Amino acid sequence: MISKHPSESLTVLTDLVLPSETNPLNNLFGGELLARMDRAASIAAGRHSRRISVTVSVNHVAFNKAIPLGSVVIIEAKVSRAFNTSMEIYLDVWIEEKKSGERIKSNEAIYTFVAVDETGKPIEVPQIVPVTKLEKNRYDDALRRKQLSLVLAGKLNPHDATELKALFV
Amino acid sequence: MISKHPSESLTVLTDLVLPSETNPLNNLFGGELLARMDRAASIAAGRHSRRISVTVSVNHVAFNKAIPLGSVVIIEAKVSRAFNTSMEIYLDVWIEEKKSGERIKSNEAIYTFVAVDETGKPIEVPQIVPVTKLEKNRYDDALRRKQLSLVLAGKLNPHDATELKALFV
Amino acid sequence: MISKHPSESLTVLTDLVLPSETNPLNNLFGGELLARMDRAASIAAGRHSRRISVTVSVNHVAFNKAIPLGSVVIIEAKVSRAFNTSMEIYLDVWIEEKKSGERIKSNEAIYTFVAVDETGKPIEVPQIVPVTKLEKNRYDDALRRKQLSLVLAGKLNPHDATELKALFV
Amino acid sequence: MISKHPSESLTVLTDLVLPSETNPLNNLFGGELLARMDRAASIAAGRHSRRISVTVSVNHVAFNKAIPLGSVVIIEAKVSRAFNTSMEIYLDVWIEEKKSGERIKSNEAIYTFVAVDETGKPIEVPQIVPVTKLEKNRYDDALRRKQLSLVLAGKLNPHDATELKALFV
Amino acid sequence: MISKHPSESLTVLTDLVLPSETNPLNNLFGGELLARMDRAASIAAGRHSRRISVTVSVNHVAFNKAIPLGSVVIIEAKVSRAFNTSMEIYLDVWIEEKKSGERIKSNEAIYTFVAVDETGKPIEVPQIVPVTKLEKNRYDDALRRKQLSLVLAGKLNPHDATELKALFV
Amino acid sequence: MISKHPSESLTVLTDLVLPSETNPLNNLFGGELLARMDRAASIAAGRHSRRISVTVSVNHVAFNKAIPLGSVVIIEAKVSRAFNTSMEIYLDVWIEEKKSGERIKSNEAIYTFVAVDETGKPIEVPQIVPVTKLEKNRYDDALRRKQLSLVLAGKLNPHDATELKALFV
Repeated sequence: MISKHPSESLTVLTDLVLPSETNPLNNLFGGELLARMDRAASIAAGRHSRRISVTVSVNHVAFNKAIPLGSVVIIEAKVSRAFNTSMEIYLDVWIEEKKSGERIKSNEAIYTFVAVDETGKPIEVPQIVPVTKLEKNRYDDALRRKQLSLVLAGKLNPHDATELKALFV
Repeated sequence: MISKHPSESLTVLTDLVLPSETNPLNNLFGGELLARMDRAASIAAGRHSRRISVTVSVNHVAFNKAIPLGSVVIIEAKVSRAFNTSMEIYLDVWIEEKKSGERIKSNEAIYTFVAVDETGKPIEVPQIVPVTKLEKNRYDDALRRKQLSLVLAGKLNPHDATELKALFV
Repeated sequence: MISKHPSESLTVLTDLVLPSETNPLNNLFGGELLARMDRAASIAAGRHSRRISVTVSVNHVAFNKAIPLGSVVIIEAKVSRAFNTSMEIYLDVWIEEKKSGERIKSNEAIYTFVAVDETGKPIEVPQIVPVTKLEKNRYDDALRRKQLSLVLAGKLNPHDATELKALFV
Repeated sequence: MISKHPSESLTVLTDLVLPSETNPLNNLFGGELLARMDRAASIAAGRHSRRISVTVSVNHVAFNKAIPLGSVVIIEAKVSRAFNTSMEIYLDVWIEEKKSGERIKSNEAIYTFVAVDETGKPIEVPQIVPVTKLEKNRYDDALRRKQLSLVLAGKLNPHDATELKALFV
Repeated sequence: MISKHPSESLTVLTDLVLPSETNPLNNLFGGELLARMDRAASIAAGRHSRRISVTVSVNHVAFNKAIPLGSVVIIEAKVSRAFNTSMEIYLDVWIEEKKSGERIKSNEAIYTFVAVDETGKPIEVPQIVPVTKLEKNRYDDALRRKQLSLVLAGKLNPHDATELKALFV
Repeated sequence: MISKHPSESLTVLTDLVLPSETNPLNNLFGGELLARMDRAASIAAGRHSRRISVTVSVNHVAFNKAIPLGSVVIIEAKVSRAFNTSMEIYLDVWIEEKKSGERIKSNEAIYTFVAVDETGKPIEVPQIVPVTKLEKNRYDDALRRKQLSLVLAGKLNPHDATELKALFV
C-alpha cells in the first residue's frame, strides 16, 4: 500500500454563517461548527483511504474565537497521521475578514476516523509521509495523542507510552 | 480601481449529501443545490468586490446529472466578468467518485450579483482580466449573456445587442 | 393525448418568512426562495403530466425585490408550454402587504422539468393550450427560450433558430 | 368594523413531503404537519384581521391518515368564526394522488389565534358571515367549541354554556 | 397485562431555544413547540406500551406564555390514562429562569397515541394506575375528554356520554 | 460562594433520531450528536453557574456505538468539576432499547464551558462537591485533564503538572 502526503486529502469547506446557524449571541452555534468539521473531516478521511470512513472520536476542539453571523468561514481538513486502520484528521478553521480578505484563525480541531469495508470491519489505510514543517510537527504529536488516548482508556500502561512519558520524565 | 483575476475570487465548497438534503429519489434535492451554489457565489462575489454582494439573478442552471445520497460534492465559484456594479459568477459542480477519486462534472451554473454600499446603493467593482483559455471564453460569453438579459427584459433593442446579434446574422 | 390549459397545473404555495430562512440582512435567503420555487414548480409539472417530473434547468430567476422577515410570500406556478417530454414552468412570486392585503410582485422565475417513467426514461406529456393574453405571451416566448437554450448548448445552429433569429434580423 | 366572509381569509399551502420531514416510518412527521398548519393558520388569521396574530391554542387535530414521503400535500385554512379579539381557524388537509389528481382528505384541524396591536394587547377583529352550508355548520360549532374551552378552563359554569348544554339535555 | 404508573413513562426533554426555532417576534415558533411535544409524547407512549406508537390526535394545546429566544425549555410527558389500544399523554412545559433557576409553567398539552404491531394494527396496551392527586385528576378527566372526542366525531350519542353529561345536567 | 453538588446541574435531553438527523448509513449523524450534547452541556453549565456560559472546548468524545434511525437517545449532562471560572461537563449518552426498555451506553463526552458576565468577561463559579463514587472519580480525573490541556497548549511545564506526571513516573 503506497504512502500518501497530507495534501492529498486536503478538503476545503468555505461557507457562510446564516441566521439559522447562530446561537442566541448571534455567533455560529458550537454544535453547527462541530457538524461542519465532522463533514469536512469525513471527506478528508475518505480521500486518504478511498474507503467508507466513520468518526471514532473528537479528540480536542478549542473554541478560541466566536464567529459572528454573516462571516465567511473556511474549514481545511487534512490527514495528519495514519495508524493501522485509523486516521487522525487535523482541522484549521479561519474567518475571512470581508473588507481586507485577511484570514484570522478561529479554531483548531482533531478528529479520529477509521476506515471500514462493506461489512463495517476496520481495514488498513495508507501511511502518511509529512512534507512541510507543520505537517511533520503534527505527525509527531499524533503519536503522543494516540498513546494518551490509550492510557486514558486503560488500554496502555503509562510506562509503555514511551513518546508521551518523555514529556514528563 | 485595480483589475483582478478570476482566480482571486475562487471559492471551494466541498460537502457531503446527507439524508436531510435529498429528494424522494434519494438524490440531492435541486433546491438544496441551488442554495449551496448561492452561498458559494455570494462568497466569490464578496472576494472580488470586498463589498456586501446580493443575488440579482440566477441566469442558468442545468441539472445534467443526479447527485446521489452520500456523494462528495465540490462546488467551485469564480467571477467570470465584472460590469459596472455587477458580477457574473460562473460555478462548476463535480461529484467525486469515492473509490477512484475521479471527478465527474454534474452541473454548471451562472449567477449574477451586485455589490452594494452600506445604504444598499450599487457600487463600482474591479474589472476582470481573464487568464486561462476557459476564463477567456467565459469572459467573452458573459457579454452576450448580459445583452440577452437586457433584450429579454426589454431594456435593450435587439439591433443594438451587437455581440449577440452576430450569432444570428 | 389531450391538451391542457395552464390553469390546470396552477400551484399555490403561500408561506411565511421565518428567522431560520433569512440571510444576514434579515431578508429571505435567495437559496431558500429557489428551493421553495423548485418545490412549487415540481408540483405544477406533476399536475400537468401526472408523472414523476424532475428539474432539468432553472432558466432565469430575477431577484428584483428583497423579501423581509415575517413577510407572507405567495408563489404561483403554472406550466407555460410543453414540448415533447419537457415542460416550461413559469413562476410568479408576490409579497402580501399585511395591513392592506395588497400584493407586490417580487420575482419571476422559469424552470424546466421533464416527465419520466418508472425507469427514469423521458416520456411524452400533454400539450398546452394557452387561454389568457399573459398565458399566450408566455407560450410564445417559451419557444424562443427553448431555441436559445439549444443554441447556447451548441445543439442548434443559430440560423435554424427561426423564432429567435427573428428578434435580431 | 365591516364583517368578512371566510373565503376572504382562504390560505392555500401546497407543498411536497421531502425526506427531511418524515418520521422513521417514512411518513410526514406529525410535528412537521403541525408546524405547516400553524403557518397557514397564522396567514389566514392575518388576512382576516389585517393585524399581527398569535397562536392561542390548537383545539383539535386528528391524524386520520399517514402522509407518505413524496406526497403532494394541500393545506387550506379559513377563519370559521371570529369572537371579540380571537379567531377560530379551520384547516383541511388533503393528499393529492399523483396519477389521478384525486384529493383524499387526510386531516382536519382547528387552531385559535388572537389579533394584537403593536404593544401585544388583544384588539378587536371583524366578525364572520358564513356563506356555504359547510361554513355555516363550522360557524355554529365554533360557539360550542368556545364554550367547551371556557368550561374546561373553569372560566364558564357548565350551566351557562347554553349551546353546549343543549347537546346533552 | 400488568398495569403501570404514569411515572414509568415520564419523559424529560430539556433543550434551548435557538434562533432557527423562533418566529419573527423572537419567541419559540408554535410549530416547533408542537413538534418537540410530539417527539416527547411519542417516547412516553413507547415507554408505556413498549410498542411502536403513532400520533392519533392533538387534543388541546394552550399557548399561555411566549417562550423567548435563549430560554431553557423543559418538556415533561407522561401517560395519563390508557384505554384499550390508545393512550392519552399529558405534557407540561416550563421555562427555567436563568438567574434564579425558578420554573414558570408556559404550556400544557394533551396528545393521543395508539400502539400498533408490526403490520400497523392497533394492539392492546397496559392500563394506568394513577398515584398522585394530580395524576388521579388527569386520569378522571381523560375519560370525559375521550367521550367528548367520540361525541364530536359522531361516534357516541351525547346521552350515553355519562361522565361528560354529568357536567351539564 | 456556596459549593454545589453535580446533581444540581443534571440535565436530561431525551429525544428521537429522525430521518433528517442521520448519515448515509442511517445512523445518527456525528455532527448532530455533537450539537445535541453541546446544548445539554450548555444548560448544565448554566444551572451550575446561573450565568451565561459559553463552550470553551470539546475535550474528548468517543463514538463507541452507532445510534440507528428511530432510536430513543438519552443525554445526561452534569458538571463534574469547577475551576476558577470554567466548568468541566461530563456527558453520558444512552440508547433505550424499545421492547425491553433497557439502556445501552453509546457515548461519553467531556466539554468545557466558561461562565461570563454581561460584558463577556469570565466570572467566578461555585465549586463542586462530588457525592457518589463515580462523581468523585470524575472529579479527580478532571484535574489531570485540565493539566493535560495546559501542557498541550504550552501553558504549563510538564514537570509542574504534578497530578498528570504521577501517572508516568
